[in-house]
Amino acid sequence: MKKYVILFKSPDRRGIVAKITGWLFKQNLNIISMEEHVEDKSSYFFMRIVILSAFDLNENKDFIIELTKLGQTFEGQFSIKKSNKKNNCAIFVTKEQLPLYDLLIKHQTNDLNCTIKMVLSNHMLLKNVAEKFNIPYLRFPINMRNKSEIEPQIIKTLEEHKIDLIILARYMQILSPKFVKKYEQKIINIHHGFLPAFKGARPYRQAWERGVKMIGATAHYVTNELDEGPIITQDVTSINHTYSEKDMIRTGKDIERIVLTNAVQAHLDNRIILHNGRTIVFNR
Amino acid sequence: MKKYVILFKSPDRRGIVAKITGWLFKQNLNIISMEEHVEDKSSYFFMRIVILSAFDLNENKDFIIELTKLGQTFEGQFSIKKSNKKNNCAIFVTKEQLPLYDLLIKHQTNDLNCTIKMVLSNHMLLKNVAEKFNIPYLRFPINMRNKSEIEPQIIKTLEEHKIDLIILARYMQILSPKFVKKYEQKIINIHHGFLPAFKGARPYRQAWERGVKMIGATAHYVTNELDEGPIITQDVTSINHTYSEKDMIRTGKDIERIVLTNAVQAHLDNRIILHNGRTIVFNR
Amino acid sequence: MKKYVILFKSPDRRGIVAKITGWLFKQNLNIISMEEHVEDKSSYFFMRIVILSAFDLNENKDFIIELTKLGQTFEGQFSIKKSNKKNNCAIFVTKEQLPLYDLLIKHQTNDLNCTIKMVLSNHMLLKNVAEKFNIPYLRFPINMRNKSEIEPQIIKTLEEHKIDLIILARYMQILSPKFVKKYEQKIINIHHGFLPAFKGARPYRQAWERGVKMIGATAHYVTNELDEGPIITQDVTSINHTYSEKDMIRTGKDIERIVLTNAVQAHLDNRIILHNGRTIVFNR
Amino acid sequence: MKKYVILFKSPDRRGIVAKITGWLFKQNLNIISMEEHVEDKSSYFFMRIVILSAFDLNENKDFIIELTKLGQTFEGQFSIKKSNKKNNCAIFVTKEQLPLYDLLIKHQTNDLNCTIKMVLSNHMLLKNVAEKFNIPYLRFPINMRNKSEIEPQIIKTLEEHKIDLIILARYMQILSPKFVKKYEQKIINIHHGFLPAFKGARPYRQAWERGVKMIGATAHYVTNELDEGPIITQDVTSINHTYSEKDMIRTGKDIERIVLTNAVQAHLDNRIILHNGRTIVFNR
Repeated sequence: MKKYVILFKSPDRRGIVAKITGWLFKQNLNIISMEEHVEDKSSYFFMRIVILSAFDLNENKDFIIELTKLGQTFEGQFSIKKSNKKNNCAIFVTKEQLPLYDLLIKHQTNDLNCTIKMVLSNHMLLKNVAEKFNIPYLRFPINMRNKSEIEPQIIKTLEEHKIDLIILARYMQILSPKFVKKYEQKIINIHHGFLPAFKGARPYRQAWERGVKMIGATAHYVTNELDEGPIITQDVTSINHTYSEKDMIRTGKDIERIVLTNAVQAHLDNRIILHNGRTIVFNR
Repeated sequence: MKKYVILFKSPDRRGIVAKITGWLFKQNLNIISMEEHVEDKSSYFFMRIVILSAFDLNENKDFIIELTKLGQTFEGQFSIKKSNKKNNCAIFVTKEQLPLYDLLIKHQTNDLNCTIKMVLSNHMLLKNVAEKFNIPYLRFPINMRNKSEIEPQIIKTLEEHKIDLIILARYMQILSPKFVKKYEQKIINIHHGFLPAFKGARPYRQAWERGVKMIGATAHYVTNELDEGPIITQDVTSINHTYSEKDMIRTGKDIERIVLTNAVQAHLDNRIILHNGRTIVFNR
Repeated sequence: MKKYVILFKSPDRRGIVAKITGWLFKQNLNIISMEEHVEDKSSYFFMRIVILSAFDLNENKDFIIELTKLGQTFEGQFSIKKSNKKNNCAIFVTKEQLPLYDLLIKHQTNDLNCTIKMVLSNHMLLKNVAEKFNIPYLRFPINMRNKSEIEPQIIKTLEEHKIDLIILARYMQILSPKFVKKYEQKIINIHHGFLPAFKGARPYRQAWERGVKMIGATAHYVTNELDEGPIITQDVTSINHTYSEKDMIRTGKDIERIVLTNAVQAHLDNRIILHNGRTIVFNR
Repeated sequence: MKKYVILFKSPDRRGIVAKITGWLFKQNLNIISMEEHVEDKSSYFFMRIVILSAFDLNENKDFIIELTKLGQTFEGQFSIKKSNKKNNCAIFVTKEQLPLYDLLIKHQTNDLNCTIKMVLSNHMLLKNVAEKFNIPYLRFPINMRNKSEIEPQIIKTLEEHKIDLIILARYMQILSPKFVKKYEQKIINIHHGFLPAFKGARPYRQAWERGVKMIGATAHYVTNELDEGPIITQDVTSINHTYSEKDMIRTGKDIERIVLTNAVQAHLDNRIILHNGRTIVFNR
């Protein structure tokens, strides 16, 4: 039996759940897990269904056409993905080691359901980390001046490797709007601050100066407005007056890597639906 | 439209979700929320459905008969409850003020969907708290020796007031097996320790002596084995070597009341299914 | 023996600790607890000392003069307070019940080392709460237009009752700069958001719209810039996409009251030193 | 200037702080940080002092003799350690990767103030992890039967490398009483459960069966009673009914490694004093 994850969103309407589940039942599919949510404010309906099928559904044109039609009767959209099909991922880094290590370790222990195709960087600093795990390390000496020239080369590389998801693991370059548009909802960034506080550079310095008593990290999809993309996961830890900016940085690293890895896992599990700049992140 | 909560559990089987949702759809009921869970280890299926109905379902005998039949086809059990029907609650206390206050305040602000009929105690100590909120305070001078004599009087009182849920808010008497059996799955206790550690009396002293770095509280249904009932909610807070037993007690109080109130809310929302001594607590 | 708390801050310098502790020893005072902190960035030194004395120190002019001199040799400042001397507090409220309840309950159970002299409000809504605890409830119908007229009456009342600390427990009026200056470092406010995010009105609405995955609360000293005062305590709790703004409000209340009460306790215990818009909050 | 950490414990007595700080001042030492604690229950006094010295103190016999004498006047004990002197550590492992990775990564980034001399195991499984970081990996095929024969070889190896601290990073063999005695207070173990609950094997299975709503990890010094040694650090995370034992294991790993690393850091920073089976862990 093959496992599939179906995501669906539409305006809320009476009978959606019954109609969709009934239709799936008629197709001889077994629902093994299901979670839905209605957002009162927008009257929108969201659903995630995990099904078992005896046949390959993605390649079954009739099935896809019927599913699409069903969605249209509710003015909604379905997406479907084979559960064990691995996404191809590229990790973009600059100099922070911990988030990169965490992704590579969990990739290696099969705790991340993906294939990490490459680590890509504007520096050579983390080459030895990628090599420890036998992952190709590609350096593109990109900066603010040569971005329009180098970025197309990066995109070409990503396309050649059929990259499905880009993970910015403390990557210190800003992606162009064109790049972001091309990989819409396919770029996850970790910000080392509790957004929407402390946007931009040096969030821990900002946090120190404001004298906050907790510091945090935020993983989000990248949009063209810096640190404004839809939040996927967040976490914080308590600090106190004895923490210097450096202490905050060290403490924050333990949070950042987990927040990022959890966001990536949610994406790879097809547990996220985007709606109006916010995320519905289904449970597990 | 009237709102109902349906709980269901049965051995897991293909097509349950589709069949139940399809049946509800045919009865002209609108599913507004639904959450299910399959426990791999026992191959059991659990579901909570919130529906809207134009008619009173509890009084509709045919509906109840059909629903029961449907459950039986899966060797499962349904329960159904009108969402805004308020449970009658009795709070049992001895001398701790905070959990009692929390329940009474949230009852008064309509954050607890129930009717608190009485506060019942083996002492007079908290009479003034109950009176502040105009809740009857009944004292039964029960102790280990006269339990067999006094407990029937308590039960009689509970029956007269049609009590649906008993909340032990740091009640310092042990209920008899007969009492517990009579109110099976209808008694929630707060234990001021992180169960299964620190069962029994003086959990904070035990915690101090063991030198733990976190203390917690546990709300659970009461069974005949002390502090062994199914856990509903738990929480902890960090402490350190500077905490004396007294500091732990003070700090713990802030956790206890929230853990207890959250457990009571889950029960009143019909979000809990019991299975093999464990709880499935659906989200919200 | 009488217990005193001494706070001290000065530029950091070699030998401060030894000199101060040695001097106290010579005065026949027993140091029972001591905590110090050096802020690397500003090279400033902070210390809190708890001592036992056979004599009344506050009334001992010579002692105070000598202590002040000692501080001046380090270009620093001492403050000293009798540990069991209770501050007179006024709680300002509008319509939120929980933070007010929490303060009144803990005041009543002697968990807050102060005397709550009054609850003061721009509305009548919480009169019944104050009355439950026999605390005078004073209503001043202040608003944006009549502030310059009414505020002096409030100040007069506070002065008559020798108020040492003002607690804004979700008080919905902005205090004038004159008022704030008069009670500098003597006004604690609870903000129902994780500052510096979500300043101003309706922080939970802002949080919902940004789609954050955690919500929090912040207690801070009041300054003339809205929600910019030195932070004393903060806490957060995890939420998810199922939380409406209303759910956030309800969930947030459980955090707000504890964050506020903890901040007030820290102030009453003389555990806070202010420095450059940040707080040093000594342990306990 | 050289930095030293001094730990001291003794029965509590008037004037200790002043006398010790005064003595240090006379030795021309600058106190840069100081934290003390009095345990009410046992009337014991604990202190940690960080000092700067122009001279090497450890090699100064007179200084050590005088310090010891000073301690004896209070029936107490001093220990002193050069702050930047690195401990030699050995990490014992079996098959869990994450805690080992965390220690090796933070060792490599200089976030752990020690020299990891070797990874030692009863299996070959983690050889490749140690090799990634160029740390020698030693395999001793120890088991319950050959322990009395193999353990002396292990001890010999540890002695040859002058190991100061042994870190059991999910090492699946029980050390003999003789071994434990030899390295008293020098062996830190991570237990993947919230002690004192869930001692022994398979704590997550126990946790699943009890139906707890939080799981945790505990780092402690090893004594001869299994999982009964003094607790250094603990942490927990919330779970719910959807977590299988396997999910708990995966989730727990993120906690275990941080709890262990934090305990090791506290030990290496000389921040821990043991007393009656409990730890005083000074701040930072």
